[in-house]
Amino acid sequence: MTQNQANSATANRQDGKGAASGNKLRVIFLGGLGEVGKNITALEYGNDIIVVDCGIGFPTNEMLGVDMVLPDITYLAERKDKIRGIFITHGHEDHIGSLPYLLPQLDAPIYATRMAIGLISTKLKEHKLLDNAKLNVVEAGSAPIKAGAFAVEFFHIVHSIPDSCGLGIHTPVGTVVHTGDFKFDLTPTDGWQANFGQIARLGNEGVLALLSECVHAETEGATPSEQVVRATFDRLFNKAAGRIIIATFGSLIARVQIALDLAYKHGRKVAVLGRSMENNVAMAVEMGYLKVPEGTLIKISEARELTLDKVVVVITGSQGEPSSVLTRVANQENRFINVIPGDTIVVSSTPIPGNEVAIIRVINSLLMQGADVYYSQVARVHVSGHASQEELKMMISLTRPKYAVPIHGERRHMVAYAKLAGEMGIAAENIFICGNGSVLEFTADSAAAAAPVHAGALFVDGGSISDIGDVVLRDRQSLSRDGVLTIAVSIDSETGEMAGEPDIVSRGFVEPESSDELFNRVREVVRNTVRLEREAAIAGDWPQLNRRIKEAVSQLLFTQTKRRPMLLPLIVEV
Amino acid sequence: MTQNQANSATANRQDGKGAASGNKLRVIFLGGLGEVGKNITALEYGNDIIVVDCGIGFPTNEMLGVDMVLPDITYLAERKDKIRGIFITHGHEDHIGSLPYLLPQLDAPIYATRMAIGLISTKLKEHKLLDNAKLNVVEAGSAPIKAGAFAVEFFHIVHSIPDSCGLGIHTPVGTVVHTGDFKFDLTPTDGWQANFGQIARLGNEGVLALLSECVHAETEGATPSEQVVRATFDRLFNKAAGRIIIATFGSLIARVQIALDLAYKHGRKVAVLGRSMENNVAMAVEMGYLKVPEGTLIKISEARELTLDKVVVVITGSQGEPSSVLTRVANQENRFINVIPGDTIVVSSTPIPGNEVAIIRVINSLLMQGADVYYSQVARVHVSGHASQEELKMMISLTRPKYAVPIHGERRHMVAYAKLAGEMGIAAENIFICGNGSVLEFTADSAAAAAPVHAGALFVDGGSISDIGDVVLRDRQSLSRDGVLTIAVSIDSETGEMAGEPDIVSRGFVEPESSDELFNRVREVVRNTVRLEREAAIAGDWPQLNRRIKEAVSQLLFTQTKRRPMLLPLIVEV
Repeated sequence: MTQNQANSATANRQDGKGAASGNKLRVIFLGGLGEVGKNITALEYGNDIIVVDCGIGFPTNEMLGVDMVLPDITYLAERKDKIRGIFITHGHEDHIGSLPYLLPQLDAPIYATRMAIGLISTKLKEHKLLDNAKLNVVEAGSAPIKAGAFAVEFFHIVHSIPDSCGLGIHTPVGTVVHTGDFKFDLTPTDGWQANFGQIARLGNEGVLALLSECVHAETEGATPSEQVVRATFDRLFNKAAGRIIIATFGSLIARVQIALDLAYKHGRKVAVLGRSMENNVAMAVEMGYLKVPEGTLIKISEARELTLDKVVVVITGSQGEPSSVLTRVANQENRFINVIPGDTIVVSSTPIPGNEVAIIRVINSLLMQGADVYYSQVARVHVSGHASQEELKMMISLTRPKYAVPIHGERRHMVAYAKLAGEMGIAAENIFICGNGSVLEFTADSAAAAAPVHAGALFVDGGSISDIGDVVLRDRQSLSRDGVLTIAVSIDSETGEMAGEPDIVSRGFVEPESSDELFNRVREVVRNTVRLEREAAIAGDWPQLNRRIKEAVSQLLFTQTKRRPMLLPLIVEV
Repeated sequence: MTQNQANSATANRQDGKGAASGNKLRVIFLGGLGEVGKNITALEYGNDIIVVDCGIGFPTNEMLGVDMVLPDITYLAERKDKIRGIFITHGHEDHIGSLPYLLPQLDAPIYATRMAIGLISTKLKEHKLLDNAKLNVVEAGSAPIKAGAFAVEFFHIVHSIPDSCGLGIHTPVGTVVHTGDFKFDLTPTDGWQANFGQIARLGNEGVLALLSECVHAETEGATPSEQVVRATFDRLFNKAAGRIIIATFGSLIARVQIALDLAYKHGRKVAVLGRSMENNVAMAVEMGYLKVPEGTLIKISEARELTLDKVVVVITGSQGEPSSVLTRVANQENRFINVIPGDTIVVSSTPIPGNEVAIIRVINSLLMQGADVYYSQVARVHVSGHASQEELKMMISLTRPKYAVPIHGERRHMVAYAKLAGEMGIAAENIFICGNGSVLEFTADSAAAAAPVHAGALFVDGGSISDIGDVVLRDRQSLSRDGVLTIAVSIDSETGEMAGEPDIVSRGFVEPESSDELFNRVREVVRNTVRLEREAAIAGDWPQLNRRIKEAVSQLLFTQTKRRPMLLPLIVEV
């Protein structure tokens, strides 16, 4: 673990030679390091910046009420004029999802393959940003795109959405390879392997630094091929007497391809259900990423005309998301699908950490309703889209970089990757474990951590970038534990006495029917406190009165209930 | 899945012959079916009832602020006079944790092995219930204990706490075997295998029904022996240059035994830290379950006198529990241990569903601080205490029951177990998937579902059984999403006008510094509303005024913020 400590030590050290970085390449990590999600990395050389990816993150449990998380791109916004392009590796949310919010601050042309451009267009249109966007479709493997001091070539890799790429970024000090998210499935569903020739050529020409995804760096061996899922599905199709329902990610077109192929083979038809699934499938069909056997893809309304043993429905919701089709089916709330005993339901995913309980609940509910349910614990119904150890090592072998930097992962993934890179012969001091805000400065023959820049997270809560911060989130946590109790007290400011009885309302604290006696005691305590604090009331010292009421009521409630609801005394002066 | 549907169909069917059940054995499932935790099962015959286990459950994500969950034992409390004994299979919380709360309602003698009685005593003492408790230490394998119509023998099995047992329950209609929680580790740390002879004898004599745990019924093969963990630990002890810190469950004495043995072998000393760990280890040493090599177990204060390469500390917190030692170490809040680069930290567990994110966070934090961390994804540092498929099948083979009933598991586990039991040749109609509240009635040659009884959950929130219910929990969820906004309005009841300005306080909604303008608009809306509703105010129709204020403010806030905080208008009449 030498590289780990070496880099921790250097992470905050200003590189002595770095002040004038005109002749240095700066790689600035603004998101996706030390976390899974909100991926965004910038490369800066002299007067030019390019940005790679612009994704969203997903709120953690403590971010109560937060819908999504965006990277804080202050660093880029302050250097807007230098940005020559935004290069997108693939169309997943954690790589494109921030564009509708942050593109106005970046205002640069976007380069991506067709599938990603399609998905970005849909997003920008929803946010009324499409007209001013400069979108450029790139074909994987085509000539490098000039962007200021940089030239960027896209190389095809395999991932869980079509037309995914890594980037060969040619810079004045050498070539940086950014893997995007990848695996090396040698028998992918669409027959389109990673472009080993192109990646090896980059390696042959010389790679200065490899920025590699690392989210499965803990997993031994190689990630199984999508064909493993095809084989499992084939067995299930053989066995199923009734309807087959497959839940997976809306962008996992390869899985839909398998469903279509097998449906055709077994004399069934396929309908898709769920907004993201329907949009992605329509786009993939239109663009030719999905090959539909004649007449096999039908509308959900048409599926209802068929007998159950002729139907396959591919739906969203494999992560137990509350508003997804699968969760609604489990809760008997979907208008197209009710579980019928004899249904074969396939939950074709593995849970993203944090989603385990939601998915398990959905599975239990479907089983209760009499379905045969297949999920990752009992059948090989999913393979990951990410490289395992042998593939990560193969990428190092192909590119033979001088420096290696794990990206797109938590600390544990980056540490596991650093071990692998060390085993591959990269010197410990040439492996950098960075974080969001870290900056690495490269010359043709050196690399060092420079002073970090501002990085962070912005919250989207209710449709737009939000003002909520730590105070609000802490209060939400407190409210979620013991609820709230408000006490309105009207005080006659002349006499310092109460004008009328205190009014009490509580939520999330005690059940309404059992609160009467307790609230009577609260009123009594408030009355006594106001009497004792009469001088403060006459003096108009409301903060003092407020504090005393809080203390007295808090003590009473804790003694009586062992709970500490948030107390909000409101003093109305009359 | 025939048995599944067959039983769903019969679950609510009153057995025609069951009205007079004097000659029938009733098995009443009051907790632990369709869930993991709060295990409790009762057997009733004529005028006699025995209870098996009395555990707590753990709150799900939606049970905000709930500390623990107890089974609702109304059925038993109403038949208190019939209860002849409470038989405890082992000392885990989900088998004994409810006793301090529910024993007064049951008021019956408790039978358990020494370790469990020790743990129960500690609990009852804390709740001042020890003096009146009738505790009976049972030796596994000894003669059956008479309890009314029942005779109960304890057979030793292997589990992740010492001296765990299953029960052979002899009843007038036949023998029921209750497995407790078990696995068949053939090389357990303490050399004490499951009593295959006793279990096989029960099978030879004839078993009417097998109530089997099933929580790992999805897992192929057999659960690896604890010796696998010993081998991993030995490698880590060989490699570690500095301190070794091992986090595991406080009751996992076998893991502590391994740490002690290896510490002795490698010339180290062991200290334990964490309340449950310290208590359990002290008890296990005293009772002889833990064999301490001479001088190897030391106090944490003594550990500080040694060089780091002589120290092993075994601590609690392998599930990322907020107040556990490991989490405090990760957060740099523990007064005995600060992470030192070079520490080897072993997280010796696998996450219980719902705890994944908390554990991952702890691991990432320890890595950030420079520790070498070993956890289940990267090393074989844990084995389960529960039987996998081959062991569950072996238990069926040994007991050869006529009827099989999975217990202690979610629906998915019970369904997976039912498949296994079917594969073992038990007829589908003889396999029962039940739920909490289900009742099975047995004669010597029949079994059928009878009308279910009341079962459910009680919440402990703040130290005692609580009055909180669905309303409170729903409100807490709502509060956790968008916070709360309270508005105190004082109304002159004679004029119907406001006496003074509305007072507004919010928590968990908007950051304080950005709320001024918004709150001014809220005040304006309130003023307008009161003006429009003057007649209602004069008439003293406070509910009407309250409703109108809520509507108007809610609309304003949603337009401005796209959020819906809980609104609490308080009208003070002056």
